[in-house]
Amino acid sequence: MTKKLFAEFFGTFWLVFGGCGSAVFAAGVPDLGIGLLGVALAFGLSVLTMAYAVGHISGGHFNPAVSFGLLFGGRFPAKELIPYIIAQCIGAIAAAGCLYIILNGAGPTHFTKPGDFATNFYGEAVYNGKAFSMGAAFLAEFLLTAFFLIIIMGSTDRWANGKFAGIAIGLALTLIHLISIPITNTSVNPARSLSQAIFVGGEAISQLWLFWVAPIAGGITGGLVYRYLIQNHAEEKV
Amino acid sequence: MTKKLFAEFFGTFWLVFGGCGSAVFAAGVPDLGIGLLGVALAFGLSVLTMAYAVGHISGGHFNPAVSFGLLFGGRFPAKELIPYIIAQCIGAIAAAGCLYIILNGAGPTHFTKPGDFATNFYGEAVYNGKAFSMGAAFLAEFLLTAFFLIIIMGSTDRWANGKFAGIAIGLALTLIHLISIPITNTSVNPARSLSQAIFVGGEAISQLWLFWVAPIAGGITGGLVYRYLIQNHAEEKV
Amino acid sequence: MTKKLFAEFFGTFWLVFGGCGSAVFAAGVPDLGIGLLGVALAFGLSVLTMAYAVGHISGGHFNPAVSFGLLFGGRFPAKELIPYIIAQCIGAIAAAGCLYIILNGAGPTHFTKPGDFATNFYGEAVYNGKAFSMGAAFLAEFLLTAFFLIIIMGSTDRWANGKFAGIAIGLALTLIHLISIPITNTSVNPARSLSQAIFVGGEAISQLWLFWVAPIAGGITGGLVYRYLIQNHAEEKV
Amino acid sequence: MTKKLFAEFFGTFWLVFGGCGSAVFAAGVPDLGIGLLGVALAFGLSVLTMAYAVGHISGGHFNPAVSFGLLFGGRFPAKELIPYIIAQCIGAIAAAGCLYIILNGAGPTHFTKPGDFATNFYGEAVYNGKAFSMGAAFLAEFLLTAFFLIIIMGSTDRWANGKFAGIAIGLALTLIHLISIPITNTSVNPARSLSQAIFVGGEAISQLWLFWVAPIAGGITGGLVYRYLIQNHAEEKV
Repeated sequence: MTKKLFAEFFGTFWLVFGGCGSAVFAAGVPDLGIGLLGVALAFGLSVLTMAYAVGHISGGHFNPAVSFGLLFGGRFPAKELIPYIIAQCIGAIAAAGCLYIILNGAGPTHFTKPGDFATNFYGEAVYNGKAFSMGAAFLAEFLLTAFFLIIIMGSTDRWANGKFAGIAIGLALTLIHLISIPITNTSVNPARSLSQAIFVGGEAISQLWLFWVAPIAGGITGGLVYRYLIQNHAEEKV
Repeated sequence: MTKKLFAEFFGTFWLVFGGCGSAVFAAGVPDLGIGLLGVALAFGLSVLTMAYAVGHISGGHFNPAVSFGLLFGGRFPAKELIPYIIAQCIGAIAAAGCLYIILNGAGPTHFTKPGDFATNFYGEAVYNGKAFSMGAAFLAEFLLTAFFLIIIMGSTDRWANGKFAGIAIGLALTLIHLISIPITNTSVNPARSLSQAIFVGGEAISQLWLFWVAPIAGGITGGLVYRYLIQNHAEEKV
Repeated sequence: MTKKLFAEFFGTFWLVFGGCGSAVFAAGVPDLGIGLLGVALAFGLSVLTMAYAVGHISGGHFNPAVSFGLLFGGRFPAKELIPYIIAQCIGAIAAAGCLYIILNGAGPTHFTKPGDFATNFYGEAVYNGKAFSMGAAFLAEFLLTAFFLIIIMGSTDRWANGKFAGIAIGLALTLIHLISIPITNTSVNPARSLSQAIFVGGEAISQLWLFWVAPIAGGITGGLVYRYLIQNHAEEKV
Repeated sequence: MTKKLFAEFFGTFWLVFGGCGSAVFAAGVPDLGIGLLGVALAFGLSVLTMAYAVGHISGGHFNPAVSFGLLFGGRFPAKELIPYIIAQCIGAIAAAGCLYIILNGAGPTHFTKPGDFATNFYGEAVYNGKAFSMGAAFLAEFLLTAFFLIIIMGSTDRWANGKFAGIAIGLALTLIHLISIPITNTSVNPARSLSQAIFVGGEAISQLWLFWVAPIAGGITGGLVYRYLIQNHAEEKV
């Protein structure tokens, strides 16, 4: 169990350090920046790489909404849920702390400023216009996490080509970001949202509830949809 | 059969929600937008991810032109054609409905406007210039769908590395979009074109015929080309 | 043998239609264009997709320099060399013909003009400056094709993970384009260069020799380097 | 052993020629350039392609920090360490020499200038602002190399899907560059830093120590972390 929790800790650290880090340091570099496409790729590759690195240890969740979804999908034992979520949150916060330290090493005239973090939001001014309403943000986070779980459940199904699951799941997270960074800055992962909010405070904290409730509700829904509407065999033993 | 149709429903939903959604929300974000490259990647990844998630259930068509092509390629039974196409069209329209709801949650000064949809077209003003003629649009859609089916037939051939088919087919759709978004906004998929047109109406409806006829004709041609010119063994039993 | 030649014909058609087509239609779309990165991806994906589609038929060369390299690497029989190269050149020219027809369907105010083709060059004015000298162009084409063949020989080695060769080889072509589009517009493929030059004429024809000699010399060198310096077992029977 | 060293020589040559070459020639092409995203992809693909090409010969390190990390991770014999590092450094320098020759073939008005090289740095003016402090640069290089080794150790673990390791490791290097090109221009590889510094001299040489010490310390740490905290079985025999 300890090795599983270390795997979740390092995997979620990498997701936040890689995904949020690329957003913070590299997305907006003038002329040469990686933009939203690069950030979407970074989030997906963080999961793809860690899925092949430690997936055989812990299953490679790196995300409380995934753990909830697999629980309701009949693939994950209830007794491991809380320890997994704690390891994920600690890993995410540790990564945000390292981003904080590096950000404070930016020179005074650098275009990246201390305090820049990749927070999630709704209803706020971003990208030259108003962001999306709370309802639209909730629907987007709910649907995207539900489909994320359908892909996770399906690609790891015992009748699927399970060895490709790391590619499918990682690139699903890339696709999710390609759609929704302009909507909510894309969470689908409560630990990721928490890690950024606690370093920024204020509205990032007061809006945090949505980025726990919508992804977890979506994850559970996706797990149930795959289990009862699509899965073509009796249930797994966990 | 019900599980197959659910798989096609969710797969085609994801193709439209991911592909058209990324075009609508993220392609044109000022400075940071994902551009045509990001949209091309999104369409491809929607198919790649769902191919590994539910391909073992339904075969993973998500596209009436693919179902037609596989029928003429000798890989798909005629009696399933109409149910598959209906499930695909319902999934595509449901996804467009969700895009519609989220779009209406954009604030009044947002650069994304309600009514923005990723319609296909020909002969119209787009991208700072006139689009391509009806004949050029038809040829492009026909050829691209034909090659899409050659790749689908070939990569799932019993002598091929079939486990990689999801990667080859998904990235083929990315390549198709890299070539032809500036030509027709890329269909090669009648269900995808239908789903956008019914929310936009007008010219999107009156031009819809081309995005059914050309992809289906191309798909049938590609299926026949692979079956009779390239395939190196007796036919499959369906 | 006929099916092999059809496979090479369609594969090389797809390489030119996809790679050069994306360059012609989509690279320079204002603000949203796919740029050199998208073109590099398109060339690579054309080979990746066709390698999985018809690689089990013909081996998936799609390139005279690859056929020469595999011949000298001890992996391809001499008697098939000329038929393969003819099928490749006809496929490439047919694709360029289709690009020509679609290009002529562009409206009079379209930013893409009839006559735009993705020719290779050296010593000419491009990209806001002078291109590279003939010597630099030759060295780049030679080295890149040599490494292309090392990767092809290595990833299809009987002790390698041969099922991943389509991914490695396709993405090697992407990497080659990431380096060298600004140097020569990237050939490493005589059939691709020929197909564009015959629709453009003039200097594209007079410079064509370099894009046959350098890639073929590089391909042969790469085949020999892998065979005698790296390969760790007795030679293959062809 | 000779074949292993040739494999490391050619692999590291390709990493520097492809990764640094794309940065030098293609990143900053006006309007169409591949930007930091393209360079990140190029570095990753150089390793992905060579891992499948010669990984079965030498293990595919191409990086002194990787060799050190695998040594401390219990996967690489100490007696091969020095020969590997020498082969890697010679390959990297040879690639930089070829870049130098091609760069000198750029015409006098070309936007790429002789002397442009992809050096690593800290504390200097870059990208419209001051770069990051020495401490931040060290922390970034240390952490990124540590996670690189965790992914290398994990994805090649005997219980992992080892055939996908080339994809996971190559794309991990892409992700590392997506995060940190704006911080240090990304080393995580002492041979790569050395090869550029010796053609540029001056500050590139005086700062070179950091790009040996931090990646090697990080690599050793990553190897130990995986071996003792995550790995779920007795140690390997080397």
